[in-house]
Amino acid sequence: METCESRKFTLCPKFEKTFEILGKKWNGLILDVLIEDGPQRFVELAGKVPEVSDRVLVERLKELEEKGLVDRTVSNEEKNRVEYSLTTKGTDLKPVMDEIKSWGEKWVDVQE
Amino acid sequence: METCESRKFTLCPKFEKTFEILGKKWNGLILDVLIEDGPQRFVELAGKVPEVSDRVLVERLKELEEKGLVDRTVSNEEKNRVEYSLTTKGTDLKPVMDEIKSWGEKWVDVQE
Repeated sequence: METCESRKFTLCPKFEKTFEILGKKWNGLILDVLIEDGPQRFVELAGKVPEVSDRVLVERLKELEEKGLVDRTVSNEEKNRVEYSLTTKGTDLKPVMDEIKSWGEKWVDVQE
Repeated sequence: METCESRKFTLCPKFEKTFEILGKKWNGLILDVLIEDGPQRFVELAGKVPEVSDRVLVERLKELEEKGLVDRTVSNEEKNRVEYSLTTKGTDLKPVMDEIKSWGEKWVDVQE
């Protein structure tokens, strides 16, 4: 895989791609719930990101699954029990999330 | 300022706000150029984020200025020399950017 150092002055596509994933509305929050609270059923996730509609939440989870960040597992015992959890790639986002949170704590005034 | 710990299970507005700023298309790339290469004139910035139109770049710089992340300074010597640079709040985003880059280097396949 081509690293970014060789193309210092044209911005790195890897960086853009990462921002595309993280920057898409709701993705950051969904990932954060899975990082903080572990595997979640759909209704639990929907409860923790209350402003997102179920339709959009389904869409985002599908995209995150396609990007290899989220796993969707159907329980053998209880047929319709579906759980969403992070893959290793998704879990590896924790340092990014932690830095975003500490920056937000320090600088963001919610009334802005 | 109310910290987020007290509201663990409803997601923190500071976190959402931070994502809104960073996630908006082009903001991350613009901030990264200013972090990596220091103060820039408009034409220099436009050259390093080639896919963004001038109109959108002007818009984003204005928003970043309103959010207190970017300073716009007009040089006294050369009247129409305008430079954009990061505020302390903007520079404090460097750890976030570094984490995003290392995650992108490790996990993002540009052909995806």
